[in-house]
Amino acid sequence: MPHKTRQSTRGTRASSRRPSSPIKLPRPKLRRGKSLPESFRQRQTIREIADKKVPLQLLSNLLWAACGVNRRKGPFGAQGITAASASNSQEIDLFVAMEDGVYRFDAQHHQLLSVVARDLRTLAIGHGQRNMPMKAPVQIIYVVDIHRLTHTSGFQEPGLHDPEIQKSYYYVDTGLIAGNVYLFAASQGLASWFHNCDRRGLTRRLKLRAAQRVLFAHTVGYPARRSRRDVRQGPSRL
Amino acid sequence: MPHKTRQSTRGTRASSRRPSSPIKLPRPKLRRGKSLPESFRQRQTIREIADKKVPLQLLSNLLWAACGVNRRKGPFGAQGITAASASNSQEIDLFVAMEDGVYRFDAQHHQLLSVVARDLRTLAIGHGQRNMPMKAPVQIIYVVDIHRLTHTSGFQEPGLHDPEIQKSYYYVDTGLIAGNVYLFAASQGLASWFHNCDRRGLTRRLKLRAAQRVLFAHTVGYPARRSRRDVRQGPSRL
Repeated sequence: MPHKTRQSTRGTRASSRRPSSPIKLPRPKLRRGKSLPESFRQRQTIREIADKKVPLQLLSNLLWAACGVNRRKGPFGAQGITAASASNSQEIDLFVAMEDGVYRFDAQHHQLLSVVARDLRTLAIGHGQRNMPMKAPVQIIYVVDIHRLTHTSGFQEPGLHDPEIQKSYYYVDTGLIAGNVYLFAASQGLASWFHNCDRRGLTRRLKLRAAQRVLFAHTVGYPARRSRRDVRQGPSRL
Repeated sequence: MPHKTRQSTRGTRASSRRPSSPIKLPRPKLRRGKSLPESFRQRQTIREIADKKVPLQLLSNLLWAACGVNRRKGPFGAQGITAASASNSQEIDLFVAMEDGVYRFDAQHHQLLSVVARDLRTLAIGHGQRNMPMKAPVQIIYVVDIHRLTHTSGFQEPGLHDPEIQKSYYYVDTGLIAGNVYLFAASQGLASWFHNCDRRGLTRRLKLRAAQRVLFAHTVGYPARRSRRDVRQGPSRL
């Protein structure tokens, strides 16, 4: 194994079966882009997304803004990230589906770990939305690892072990990351669209453990020409 | 009734029993503050919050950033707001608990509607966290109105009528707003802390309808002197 993450629960069966070198992401550079007020003003869902690929530097910036490490000494002895999480469990993983395969974002080392060397972007879009931009360059797939809630190094409380309360935590924590993605996209003139996905298909193809659950997905790319058209196809956030 | 919102479901029984003039919020002015990259860098939970009040202009800016109207012509004929929501249902209401009472944020008219003229800030903090900053000036209480999911003017899909799927939507949508609050707070040097609350107590005191449910709360204010101390008191986002 060329790479081992801090917590064994951060790996997937797929990655342990397919050891391959991690892709080191370039150091995030967010200097360019709109201001925070202007980003709030521009925040919207854009579903018409071009096929054009996203450069690695931009992907690096996007993933750091989403849930990257913003302070080494965070709460409860763990690092702090740009998105809050229940008891700092950091239980949401981002799987990034691109043309050449699916990777897991390792925030701690700011790198991508190969999970599957196949194009699974189609599965990242729900069954009822298959007329949408299937070739958009980046699909962020939000996956919860329940084990990290039940074994948090943060504050211990009964809710972390209650399946109903866990739900409220991990869905909120998904929204906290997705909000960062939306604002970052707005700041860079990128298009982004949060939506349902083929949970069953992705769970199988990503070979997730029982404690891991696919929640939602988020398409990111460059806006296609008619980006502001009000497309009435499929449930999604707006 | 001096004021009537666009959709009758946006009111509460309390507000219809206690008609009082809405507080018109000043036009949001977000020019000052840190850049977006710097806001991502500064994003963190700060739970040590001073009692000092927040000026109305800053409250206006905060609520606009959270889920204010950022375009009059949004998707499905409705206005667009800074936070995405399932089928643009905009089903999350912000109730703002301050010393003089609780108000509901009316994003459409950028104003506060009086709900209860009592200080309920203590109820906005969960039972296990009552040693926390009870006198912090602003408690944002996230309340879902299920009726707006089931009667959305946006895209109709079966999930909007399925209680389990509704949950996934409204918790994510809460996180999307909370993410905006965290980033806005970071940009302004404010402290913010997302946490559990006394759902039963608030439901009763706010006289919510059956379709409304209290979800979480979010304390906002000025950081107290020892803002970076790692306080090990109570579950919360970090």
